[in-house]
Amino acid sequence: METTYRVTGMTCGHCVNAVSAELTALPGVTDVKVDLATGRVTVTSQGPMDADAVHAAVDEAGYDLAEA
Amino acid sequence: METTYRVTGMTCGHCVNAVSAELTALPGVTDVKVDLATGRVTVTSQGPMDADAVHAAVDEAGYDLAEA
Repeated sequence: METTYRVTGMTCGHCVNAVSAELTALPGVTDVKVDLATGRVTVTSQGPMDADAVHAAVDEAGYDLAEA
Repeated sequence: METTYRVTGMTCGHCVNAVSAELTALPGVTDVKVDLATGRVTVTSQGPMDADAVHAAVDEAGYDLAEA
C-alpha cells in the first residue's frame, strides 16, 4: 500500500536522501519516493504505516511532517 | 595561511558538510570553515592552495566556486 506525506524543510538532494534513508529503515517499508519541489513523500509498505513511527523518522532526519 | 572562497548553491547543513569534506581532503589543508548564509568558505592550509584543486573539490561536492 502507498501512503503520502508532506515533509517541510528539505532544500536539496542530501535532504531527500536523509529523509529517504530514515523512512526506508522503518518496518515493512519497501519503497520511498520523495519529490523535493513539493515535499511530497510517498511510502510504499507491506501494511499500514505507524503514524508515530513515520513522525519520529522524519524528525530524526531533521525535518518536519506537515499535515498531508 | 587562510584563503577565502565563495561557493554558490549550498542550501543546508548537508551541503556545508559535503563542501567541507572535499576541501578538508586536499593536501595541506588543516581547517575549513563554511558560512552557509553567505557561501563564504575559509580554508586554512600549510601553504598556498592550488586553485585548480579547490575548483575541482567544490565541483566534486556538487557546487560552484564563484569569484571571491
